[in-house]
Formats: sequence, structure tokens, C-alpha cells
Amino acid sequence: MNIVLLSGGSGKRLWPLSNDIRSKQFIKFFKNEELGDYESMIQIMYRQIKNIDKDAKITIATSKTQVSSIYNQIGRDVGVSIEPCRRDTFPAIALATSYLHDVQGIDENEAVVVCPVDPYVHEDYFEALKELHELAEKGDANLVLMGIEPTYPSEKYGYIIPNSKDDISYVKEFKEKPDIETARKYIENGALWNGGVFAYKLKYVLDRAHELIDFTDYEDLFDKYETLTKISFDYAVVEKEPEILVKRFKGEWKDLGTWNTLTEAMEETSIGKAILNDTCKNVHVVNELGVPVVCMGLTDVVVSASAQGILVSDKEQSSYIKPYVDGIDEQIMFAEKSWGSFKVIDVDDSSMTIKVTLNAGNKMNYHSHDLRNEIWNVISGEGTAIIDGMETPVKAGDVITMEAGCKHTIIAKTNLNLIEVQVGSEINAEDKHKFELEYK
Amino acid sequence: MNIVLLSGGSGKRLWPLSNDIRSKQFIKFFKNEELGDYESMIQIMYRQIKNIDKDAKITIATSKTQVSSIYNQIGRDVGVSIEPCRRDTFPAIALATSYLHDVQGIDENEAVVVCPVDPYVHEDYFEALKELHELAEKGDANLVLMGIEPTYPSEKYGYIIPNSKDDISYVKEFKEKPDIETARKYIENGALWNGGVFAYKLKYVLDRAHELIDFTDYEDLFDKYETLTKISFDYAVVEKEPEILVKRFKGEWKDLGTWNTLTEAMEETSIGKAILNDTCKNVHVVNELGVPVVCMGLTDVVVSASAQGILVSDKEQSSYIKPYVDGIDEQIMFAEKSWGSFKVIDVDDSSMTIKVTLNAGNKMNYHSHDLRNEIWNVISGEGTAIIDGMETPVKAGDVITMEAGCKHTIIAKTNLNLIEVQVGSEINAEDKHKFELEYK
Repeated sequence: MNIVLLSGGSGKRLWPLSNDIRSKQFIKFFKNEELGDYESMIQIMYRQIKNIDKDAKITIATSKTQVSSIYNQIGRDVGVSIEPCRRDTFPAIALATSYLHDVQGIDENEAVVVCPVDPYVHEDYFEALKELHELAEKGDANLVLMGIEPTYPSEKYGYIIPNSKDDISYVKEFKEKPDIETARKYIENGALWNGGVFAYKLKYVLDRAHELIDFTDYEDLFDKYETLTKISFDYAVVEKEPEILVKRFKGEWKDLGTWNTLTEAMEETSIGKAILNDTCKNVHVVNELGVPVVCMGLTDVVVSASAQGILVSDKEQSSYIKPYVDGIDEQIMFAEKSWGSFKVIDVDDSSMTIKVTLNAGNKMNYHSHDLRNEIWNVISGEGTAIIDGMETPVKAGDVITMEAGCKHTIIAKTNLNLIEVQVGSEINAEDKHKFELEYK
Repeated sequence: MNIVLLSGGSGKRLWPLSNDIRSKQFIKFFKNEELGDYESMIQIMYRQIKNIDKDAKITIATSKTQVSSIYNQIGRDVGVSIEPCRRDTFPAIALATSYLHDVQGIDENEAVVVCPVDPYVHEDYFEALKELHELAEKGDANLVLMGIEPTYPSEKYGYIIPNSKDDISYVKEFKEKPDIETARKYIENGALWNGGVFAYKLKYVLDRAHELIDFTDYEDLFDKYETLTKISFDYAVVEKEPEILVKRFKGEWKDLGTWNTLTEAMEETSIGKAILNDTCKNVHVVNELGVPVVCMGLTDVVVSASAQGILVSDKEQSSYIKPYVDGIDEQIMFAEKSWGSFKVIDVDDSSMTIKVTLNAGNKMNYHSHDLRNEIWNVISGEGTAIIDGMETPVKAGDVITMEAGCKHTIIAKTNLNLIEVQVGSEINAEDKHKFELEYK
């Protein structure tokens, strides 16, 4: 099975756990009892797809900012189709399809399922994806969609009106977000929510793409991506296609886009250090800091704390968070990188102190800064520092000082933690030059 | 005027701003418009007393743990009578009185006013203290008390029943915490709250002390302090004294011992970085972290964040905090020292990272550790490091490494900030040897 996961948006609706570079699909909210650890949405998706089909070829269509997090969380056994900028779902799906064909060499008669990375679903959803893939391969229709059995007359989803109430049916028409009364009528007549899942043979979307965009191959499309018109796949393709199949899906399917919906899906009252007294009702705490959160006498409240900040909100109100947090984070306080992660632990007038974690076998980019000196205090693990071409073994307790201009990296032999102290009058993320590293 | 401020308790009722070493009187809650900064209760007390009488001799009766904070916040122009352990108010006042006489050389016929450090009061209170001092000096009675004009029939205060409703009157009797109905009757008959303020001539309390305790002088009393019986000054002295004067005080006088009462006295909705949306009602935020707190849709809630943890509580509920926070702070995360302050910014398995601030002209103790190496990363300021007797000038960007066993200190020439990285398998506050520093 070929599958493309659409991994979008960097919204702050789950601030302070999401920030300008961590999207909600990378937040580790969900306890995996077997692993004894928490997983993110993208990790659950990846694991479940591999459970259903261990040979599934998974490609993630995303922006450049997410690539580090993807490699960090699911490793490198995954294709990544990078959108140079945001151009809505039609250009994104066209680019990913062309990536499968031209880069991964998948035959144009093979099928692919495209689905969003962030619905909250269980195993049955992945069985349904597989069935969609098979239907697309069979070729009774150019497009196969997933129709979610509605649980209430929602105003926020698009509706698919099928020809029949059968498990698999041809689509009669699409209806955009209706009012509640209209939604109720649709549902009585067997309408389904549009799950944003599309299955098709590569050739089908490549043909549509060539009709609408003047390009030769993946590379050409990538290069002119910025010039493309923003248009959704629904509008550019789905609504123009006369023969579409829809498969009904009756299992759990939730959009966990706000703190309110997300906390409903949490199995425990809290993640991280938290104490709630017995007068708390319907309170959830997600705490990524090392110190405890104490809650007393609260009702219907979510509390979340990270290096980025602290949210305390009535659950209903939490969906209106955007305007309050847009613009308050000048400084990214934590991020996952392909090689590990970092967290800002102190910011001062002319210094910044960062805790850096390198995963065993990984290294950060070989780089230099013009305007700041840096000091590495290794606090655990072993590795090799390379400073202006000189290799030095490092272990806990060692200190490496780097003047501005000096090229540096660390290669972690074991998991390695260090405290990086940056000193300089102008400290910013732009002051960075990357270099190729010659290292055997 | 001689004045003794009783600076007690290390309670956690204002956790996370109070911890095992920071008592509530040291938290900087109160905005001083003139200074453009926040002041603590002890700073307000000190400043107001000096305003009323610039020659006032102020002595603070306290425990050893508070001495650093006292010097940090009000400087060294203050006497400090250190109680070697907690033995209630009679031993504490006896020790302080004997300190005034034997250490400070104050004549036994001079008067002193003893008062708690933590009522929330204004200028008129200090005028009243001065009047108490004058009354004690005049000598119409052995003891002069302050009676607070009650604002409601409280069950939590002791009551003074005066002979008359005059501004100054002899005391008829004392009544311990009554029920509300009884309190109401007392108040109708002119009763006053006992403000815990005592004015007397030194000789009076020294005589009482010698009657009850077998000691020669201050030093002897200090040495046997641990053997003394716990007994309150009210019980040991006040209730046995037939002739006591009480002065009525009608001004503002509040006990800000809980988050609920404290936030009532806050002039602004928030201290520190905070965003409250317009659906918040009666919400107060006190945030000592560098990152913002965002509050949405809350009512009657206090949020407080420090390096120690985060409290989110219904205001009423906040008075029940003690059992929830007792025992959660194994690690002191911040403290004021006589020479500056520190804040723990990272804790890991075999390392701890601390931000240290030295005030200009100050130095930390010359000390060593057996079980950990330390690294100083100077991030701002200038000073002199002394490492095993060797002096080295240091400035921003400099690094000093100290192996276990090595003696070290820094003397700050200007305000100086450093990141101290401690590396070792057993890091604890007990692993510290102090040495005399020979430094010219």
C-alpha cells in the first residue's frame, strides 16, 4: 500500500505545546501502554499503518520546518515530499503524487491513499484505508473517498451525499458546511462527513495536474511551486469528477484540534507532574516542565505548561486561544531536531542558555556563528567534538569553548546531553553558517 | 526608637512563591510607584520605619535560614537576633531583648517595640508604633499593646477587652479566639484584636526572662536556646501582668497569609508576564518565570508560577494548600543569598545547572565540594575568581572549571551573572566545605 500523510499547519491552537515549529501532530499526548511511553499523532499513524501492512510505503507531505521532527519521531524509513511553501491541498497532493512517481519510482498504475495526519482514530480506520487503496486499485472509479458516519449534525464538516446507504456507494453530490437544520436532514438521508481521504491511481492525479499546471516532472513542479495558485483538491479535482466511490466508516474518528476536544481524548487526568485536589472537576493538566502543577477547586479547566509558557483556560474558552497567543512567542523555546532536541533554559540580555540532547549516533550540523561565542558543558554521554576540523573526544564534565567564527559540531556516540551557553550582544537563529563535514 | 521585627515561619501557604527558605515576608508583591519596582513586606516595614524615625534601631528576630534574604533585601544596617531553633515567642523575644542589651549595648531603661513583620499596613501604623514606644518609655505601665479596631467578628484573633473606649486605656482582660457570636458581643463592648505588638522597657522583659530561665547573658541564653520550653509571650508574660496599656489602632491592618487575602491587596491583576482575556473575572496572576501565563474564561482564580512550580487555584480553596504542597519540594529551586541569588534552571540525573547572580562588591563563600565538578560560564559582568588561592580576572564569555575538592569563589566587581554547571553522581546541598578566604 502506498500512503501519503498530509502533515500541515503550525497553528498555535494547542499553545504552549504547539509553537511556530511544533505542530499538534508532534505533541506526545497519547499513552501507549505497550511502549510505556507517550506517542504523538504522527507516531500512532505510522505505527498503525505498519501494523496493517508492514510493507506500506509511507510518504509525508509537509513543509520544511517539520522535517526534523519527522525524522526525530519516526526515523528515516519514510518518504518526505517537501512543499517549498503553502499552496493548499491540490498543489500539495500533485507534488506528493509526482514525488511518488518520479522520485520513488512507483508505477503510475499503482494506487495511493492520501489522508490527513491528525484525525484521532483506531485500528479500524487503517483497515478502511487499506480497503480504499484496494478499491482505487480495482479501478471501478477514478477516486475513492472515506465517508465518516456522522455522530451529530455538525456545521463544521463538508457532507458527502451517496447514492445509497450501502457500505460502498457512488457519490451523488457534495455539500459544503451546512447549518445544523440542513445537516440534520442530510444525515437522515444517509449523508456522510468528508474525511479528507482520497484514494486514486497515480496516473489519475498526474493527468489532472498536467491539465491544470504546466510542468514536466517532480523537480520542475517543485521549482515552480511558489508560482502555483492556491486551490483545494476538493475544488480542483473532486467536485469536477463524475464517478466517485465512497466507503462508509463507522469507527471512532475525531478532530482533536482544540484543547477542549483533545483533553476529552486523554485517558488520564494529567500528563507530567501534577497534583489535583478532590474539589477539581473535569480538569486536565499537560505539564512538560520539570516542576509540579498544583490545581485546587477548579472546574472544566485545562492547564498546560511548557518551556514556551503556561495556559490556564476554561475548556470551552480554549478554542478562542489563537488571537491571544499569536505573536507572543518571539523566541522558540524548544524544538525537536533530526539529531535530538533542544530547550532554552535561560534568556538574558546578552546570553542564552540551552539544553541540547543528541541521540546516539547522531550529529548536529557543522556550523559557525558570526556574533556569538559558545561554550559546551557536556553533562552526560560520550561523543566527538569537531572544532575547526580538530577532533576531540568528549564526556560528562568536559568543556569546549568556541569563539565566534569557529566551525563546530558534536557527534554523539551514546545519548549525549550538554548545556550550551551562548554569549554575545546579538543572539538570533539567523546567525548561523552551515558547512560540509569531512568526517570518516 | 528601638524596634524588633519578629520574622517567622517558612510556611508554604504561598507556594510556589514561598518555599522552605523563602518566607512570605520576602516575596516582592507590592508595587512601589516611586521606586518603579516591587517590594516585599520586610522591605516595606524597614522603609516605613525609617521614614517615621530615620534613627530607628531595627533588629530582626529570625532563624538562620532567613539571614541571607534579610541582608539581600534590606542591607546590613540592621541587627539580627538569630534563634538557633524555633521556641515560640517568649524565648524569641527574651533572646532579642537580651541581644539589644548585651550585643547592641542599649540601656535597660530604654524602650523597645516588638512587632510581627508581616501585617499589611500603611504609614499610620508606624505612627502608632512610635506612640507605643513613647508610652513604654513614659512608664505608666510595664507593657503597652496595640489593639486593632475590629472590622468584623473574626474567630481567628485574640481579643483585648479595655477598661474604656478611649484611644489609650488600661486592659481589663484578654479573651482567646471566640466564636462569632461571642466576638460580636466583645466588639459591641469596645473589644480590640490583639495585634501582637508589645512595647516595654528592656529591663522589664529581662527580669521576666531571668525569673523563668536560668541564664547569665545573651551568649549564654543563645547557647542553651535549644533546651528552652516552647511558650508564647502572651502566656508567659502578658497574661500574668496586671497593668497593661492598650492603644487603639483604627487604620488598615491585614493578615495576608493566604493567596486569597494576598491577591485582595494586589493593586494590579498581574505581576510578571500575563495575558488575561476579557472573560476572566477576579483572576490574579503572579508569575516569576520568564515565559507568559495566558488565562481564559476563569473566575475567582489565582495563578502563580515560579521555578518551584505552578499553582492554579480557586481563591477560597487556596487556603487549604498546605497538605498538597508539603513534601513536594525536595529541591530548593531558587533563593536569595546575602551576596545575590540563584535559580535552578535544569536538573538531570547526574547534573544540575544553576543561574547565579552576584551583586556588585559581593562574593560567595570560599568553598569546595567532594563529589562534584563545577563549571562557571560567566555571561555578564566582571569580577575575580579565586581557585585554590589563585586569582583570575573574569568577564562575560570566560569559563572556569573546578574539579571536586578544589576551593573556589567569585568576587563581583560589577553585577555578575554566571551559569554554573554541576556534574557528578551525587549532587546535594550538604556536599559543601567552607573556608576562610585570605584576600586583600
